[in-house]
Amino acid sequence: MPAIGVSVPRRDSEPKVRGATRFAADTALPGLLHARLVLAHEAHAMISAIRTEAALELPGVVAVLTAADLPIVAGGKGRLYEPLARGEVVYAGQPVAIVVAEAEALAEDAVALVEVELEPLEPVLDIEAAARPGAPRARVHAASHGEGSDIGDAHATVSAGGLEDEALSENVLGTAKLGDGDVDAALAASEVVVSGRFTTPWMYQGYLEPQTATATLEPDGELVITSSTQAAFATRDSLARLFGLPVEQVRVRSAPLGGAFGGKMMIVEPLVCAAVLVLRRPVRLVMTRSEDMAATNPAGAEVIHLELGADAEGNLTAIRGRVFVDRGATDDFGVESIAAMLAAGPYRWKAHDLSALGVATNRMTFGAYRAPAAAPGAFAVESLLDELAGRLRSDPIDLRLRNVADEGDLTVSGQPLPVFGARECLERIRAHPLWARRTELPAGEGIGAAIGWWPGGVEPAAAVCRLDSDGRLTVITGAADMTGVETSFAAIAAEAFGVELDRVRIVSADTSSAPYAGASGGSKVTYTVGRAVERAAIEARERLLEVAAGELEIAPEDLEIADGKVQPAGVPAKALAIDELAPKILSFGSRHMPVEGHGRAAPPQAPQAAAHLSHVRVDRDTGAITPLHHVVAQDVGRALNPALVEGQMLGGTVQGLGWALLEELAHDEHGQLVTGTLVDYAMPTAATSPRIETEIVEVPAPDGPYGAKGVGEAPVTGAPAAVANALAAAAGVRVTRLPMTPERVWRAVSTPALAPAER
Amino acid sequence: MPAIGVSVPRRDSEPKVRGATRFAADTALPGLLHARLVLAHEAHAMISAIRTEAALELPGVVAVLTAADLPIVAGGKGRLYEPLARGEVVYAGQPVAIVVAEAEALAEDAVALVEVELEPLEPVLDIEAAARPGAPRARVHAASHGEGSDIGDAHATVSAGGLEDEALSENVLGTAKLGDGDVDAALAASEVVVSGRFTTPWMYQGYLEPQTATATLEPDGELVITSSTQAAFATRDSLARLFGLPVEQVRVRSAPLGGAFGGKMMIVEPLVCAAVLVLRRPVRLVMTRSEDMAATNPAGAEVIHLELGADAEGNLTAIRGRVFVDRGATDDFGVESIAAMLAAGPYRWKAHDLSALGVATNRMTFGAYRAPAAAPGAFAVESLLDELAGRLRSDPIDLRLRNVADEGDLTVSGQPLPVFGARECLERIRAHPLWARRTELPAGEGIGAAIGWWPGGVEPAAAVCRLDSDGRLTVITGAADMTGVETSFAAIAAEAFGVELDRVRIVSADTSSAPYAGASGGSKVTYTVGRAVERAAIEARERLLEVAAGELEIAPEDLEIADGKVQPAGVPAKALAIDELAPKILSFGSRHMPVEGHGRAAPPQAPQAAAHLSHVRVDRDTGAITPLHHVVAQDVGRALNPALVEGQMLGGTVQGLGWALLEELAHDEHGQLVTGTLVDYAMPTAATSPRIETEIVEVPAPDGPYGAKGVGEAPVTGAPAAVANALAAAAGVRVTRLPMTPERVWRAVSTPALAPAER
Repeated sequence: MPAIGVSVPRRDSEPKVRGATRFAADTALPGLLHARLVLAHEAHAMISAIRTEAALELPGVVAVLTAADLPIVAGGKGRLYEPLARGEVVYAGQPVAIVVAEAEALAEDAVALVEVELEPLEPVLDIEAAARPGAPRARVHAASHGEGSDIGDAHATVSAGGLEDEALSENVLGTAKLGDGDVDAALAASEVVVSGRFTTPWMYQGYLEPQTATATLEPDGELVITSSTQAAFATRDSLARLFGLPVEQVRVRSAPLGGAFGGKMMIVEPLVCAAVLVLRRPVRLVMTRSEDMAATNPAGAEVIHLELGADAEGNLTAIRGRVFVDRGATDDFGVESIAAMLAAGPYRWKAHDLSALGVATNRMTFGAYRAPAAAPGAFAVESLLDELAGRLRSDPIDLRLRNVADEGDLTVSGQPLPVFGARECLERIRAHPLWARRTELPAGEGIGAAIGWWPGGVEPAAAVCRLDSDGRLTVITGAADMTGVETSFAAIAAEAFGVELDRVRIVSADTSSAPYAGASGGSKVTYTVGRAVERAAIEARERLLEVAAGELEIAPEDLEIADGKVQPAGVPAKALAIDELAPKILSFGSRHMPVEGHGRAAPPQAPQAAAHLSHVRVDRDTGAITPLHHVVAQDVGRALNPALVEGQMLGGTVQGLGWALLEELAHDEHGQLVTGTLVDYAMPTAATSPRIETEIVEVPAPDGPYGAKGVGEAPVTGAPAAVANALAAAAGVRVTRLPMTPERVWRAVSTPALAPAER
Repeated sequence: MPAIGVSVPRRDSEPKVRGATRFAADTALPGLLHARLVLAHEAHAMISAIRTEAALELPGVVAVLTAADLPIVAGGKGRLYEPLARGEVVYAGQPVAIVVAEAEALAEDAVALVEVELEPLEPVLDIEAAARPGAPRARVHAASHGEGSDIGDAHATVSAGGLEDEALSENVLGTAKLGDGDVDAALAASEVVVSGRFTTPWMYQGYLEPQTATATLEPDGELVITSSTQAAFATRDSLARLFGLPVEQVRVRSAPLGGAFGGKMMIVEPLVCAAVLVLRRPVRLVMTRSEDMAATNPAGAEVIHLELGADAEGNLTAIRGRVFVDRGATDDFGVESIAAMLAAGPYRWKAHDLSALGVATNRMTFGAYRAPAAAPGAFAVESLLDELAGRLRSDPIDLRLRNVADEGDLTVSGQPLPVFGARECLERIRAHPLWARRTELPAGEGIGAAIGWWPGGVEPAAAVCRLDSDGRLTVITGAADMTGVETSFAAIAAEAFGVELDRVRIVSADTSSAPYAGASGGSKVTYTVGRAVERAAIEARERLLEVAAGELEIAPEDLEIADGKVQPAGVPAKALAIDELAPKILSFGSRHMPVEGHGRAAPPQAPQAAAHLSHVRVDRDTGAITPLHHVVAQDVGRALNPALVEGQMLGGTVQGLGWALLEELAHDEHGQLVTGTLVDYAMPTAATSPRIETEIVEVPAPDGPYGAKGVGEAPVTGAPAAVANALAAAAGVRVTRLPMTPERVWRAVSTPALAPAER
């Protein structure tokens, strides 16, 4: 049976259902201490005192650590280097102290006894205002030194220039500018020009498992961390740098993840490890849901100003855009270059002028979220494209197909696109029966189309395949198990080695012994680590054939692997069972080398695309949008396991519907988070989701394992735009602010004369 | 600075001195239970009852498990399959029950409350008598089924025939026969024929750290064992088979070993894991020293009958020999074929007739010990060669040099010898000033020479070398750290990769993720795993050069690695520092593949040899032998780290002096061990050791890393014979029974008329 292209259940599902999965918080250690965080109650303030005496008097409380107590030796920008507020509080919810006690409940009690005395400052909350010269600063104290990174480099070969010539405030942490051609002239010459201002909120990643880490110091000085991290190696390296430890004295085990979506990297580990290094006892921190929502690193809010035009035939002419990204209070990493790029959509433009500013505010800490900056960009550009189609009386999908970029076209960053399936995705939704139904809908219903794309992350990866003495293949990687990647690895290895899926097992090793793997994010685990697995399995197969060739005295090229046996092609009578051969190879006195393969990969980026059709009903009296039916067509390169791919498409789409209709980390005028629990923060559920049809499009990635490319990020990107376009089709109005809550829709429907920005 | 051939301290020394090494017994687990063993008090008996009630009533005692309680599903021969006596006790000290309690002291108290009621049977103690047809059986119950293994196959390509034509008792567990030529005729035609009967005792390996294992069952069903094992993969496979678990549900971590010498394999793990599987709680067993001496697996006693001749010119003619090996009470594995082979010494024979019988007795359990069967064989043949030299009035070393086998000569097992340095070792001791002094000694002193050899074990191995983000190389193997192998791996990797020693770190990974490595034994770790490390490092180096070649736009072959940098050969101005390059390679967005190499090896055997000079003084009044000076010349192939090699030579020689003069696991006529503590069992110490000079001989092994071969086993083999020959030279008598205690020497000196066998 082929292993590739076959739907099999995720390997991690059954143990998760049985409760047998060992999540990071399940790590049992003798003498374990429990930590809880003291969070700041102001969005912006100077710390005048932190009084810990009462907390320390509570029996069982071991320590209350503040910034000055942490054994951090390295300086740098961002939260990693300042996991506790030092002198200044820059967002409500910022960790100010860590309480460590013999029991979690004790630590929680002690948190209430820690008095944090703050002198409030005006919080900076409006990103556009904050960027202007002279704006009050979100951070009075200078941030620590260090160079920032822009994930655009990694995701999209975007190395944008900046806005060095503009007068900007010191709140602007990073800028990017992508330009080519004469935009003014091109817009002036256009038949139609449309424009808008689009806003998207801070968005919580919404993983099921809150962030958690458990660490301990071994007697030989090794710091061992088990955590809910997407990036074991990066965590190891960061912690070593932070605490001045040799890399080999830090061992990170990334436990199976209960969801992550980009948010689980280096948030809790510095705190827990600092406590361990101070107290020299094992410490665990499990965030509560509210702490996780207030004190981790969700996606930043964005404001996108976009103006674009087309000629009379519907050829796109020029685009001008400015994206303000709310980078929150700590300068961790930027997304300006990719935000600028993604605002242009997956289209060919004759001229473009796109800029982005990352601006500090006193809201949250900025982090990665499933395709950072992609859903906001798509929401803006895809909304305007529908406007444009309306003005041109063109079919919206046809308009997109006329302009969508193909392999070899230059993106706005100036790079030629690799193999790209956006066109095929658009064609697939155009051919879908739902699209044809858009003209026959009852009043109050509408169908919208949109596409989103994601350039795809790249990062080197390696893997080992080891034939064990029981004749089974063990695949060893350093990738955290999430989203079923291990199930995909098994399929890749089984196919490449030539055995059944159940003959392959997967090991996620810790940083001490794992082959290198980058962070499990950027839709690149299956694409990069999977490619390394494929190569490792092919090498192991060759080596098995060499052994069998020696035993059978037949050339390796005349051998095949079938039914768990190595045999001369078509001569099963001479077959050697792998599970009999393996123990002979791996025995005292054996003259055969172990059957192991090692594979490496660093494939170039493989951009993903997903097109959506959204069918909604709008209640003009309440403003409620009810999604009725949704179609998502995604280019996945090759569906290694269609069930898993569909799971990603469904999950991404549902998350996109959350962006569209429900979710918002909202702050009041004091910078206090007002949707900081799951009672206030509305997440999509099965009950709020429509029927979703998945259409798998396969445009093979030349460098992916069996043609596969990343599938995790694309499906979320275009979904909010499709809903917005469906709303416009249903009710003739646009809401340009996400989420499109009933109140916002009702205002739009009720006061159509108002400009969108005023709603 | 070159990394090879340079003496550097063992990496494990400093943490051991500081107490920072994590031995297996240091594994901390919450809820850990402690086990102690109930040992049989008779050497041979039927078990009529095991009364556990009183023990179970002791508060804190969790369980008392007997054979019937263990969840063993697999049948087979040997201790592995029957870790607790079932029905019949076959040696004094055999584990009968395992007591598990909340504290170790409680478990110990409970052991005293377990009543084992035995019906004694006659113990079988005399191996020669036990082999005769009709002899009482050492084991009344039939042993479990299963095929035995003979480690000769692995060590020496010995596949000896057996003694199928002889009438032998059922106590004979295995036989081997090696024959060629007409021995009767050759001996009849010889100028001189000498013969003797030599006996060696049961010998305790004498490691510092007693055997220990800690195991736990993870919530997902994984059985995790940290133990003092030399063989992680074999332990994993054995435990999986024993308990019917999938291999991936057993994870074995071999902790750094506090000595092993062949004895630490699968003795404690089955007991501890059985308890864990029954109780579903973590369990630890740390043997006490007395338990370790009584209930583990020392080297079996031997009786060797040998007769050999030479012509008038001193050419060896024929050898006839019969070796009785005491295999003890459980049928674990045999050494008959290698015992038969080693009795012939490293010499050319015109005819040979060598046989060996492995015989069951009611003493101990048989195990491996640093060069199994080699020291007894050398003691016999080297004693007789000196007798022969005396009869021929030949120089004993010249006689050996005239007959010693060289590369290509056939061994008595019919295999051509690979590259072999025995001749060079003999020449080295002949040239040593000590040898010249033998004619000028005062009365009561003597100098003896002898040589011992070891064919060398082979087993497949693999290794990974990974360049980490700090620019250092991590070497990952599955080999347990003992005898400084990690220090050798570091030297090999540093040399092959081209960096300083301190840029290399070594990881011994557990069985879940380690590249395969066989047992750390048979003098093959550096030879086989080290070879894999060399290849992995070479591959990693090539891959680093590829990356640098791309960066520098220079062909990889024009690059060199020097001073931690990659540079065009001789152009340091263009150098790229590895610690700057590495983080660029291993970063989000990098297009370079990870710099990792994977190496495999399964080299053919590389025989070792070590020649000894022993200078002793004999006190005729007390019989005490005082070693005064000792020289050991050993062919090590290539001394990767001379300090480590010398450490092995010194340690082996001292252990050989223990064989010669001190050590004996002695039983009384009831089969009770009478030297079962370190008070009774005399081990050599610094105080009892003479000045020992080491002479490193380097005859490179063609397939070893940088020419290295195994060095651990050869130095023990010839030492007892050299002392025996020194005694003969000093006092004109031979003691043919080890150890040569004062009483035995005194008897020999006092009653020279007695035949050696009667002393």
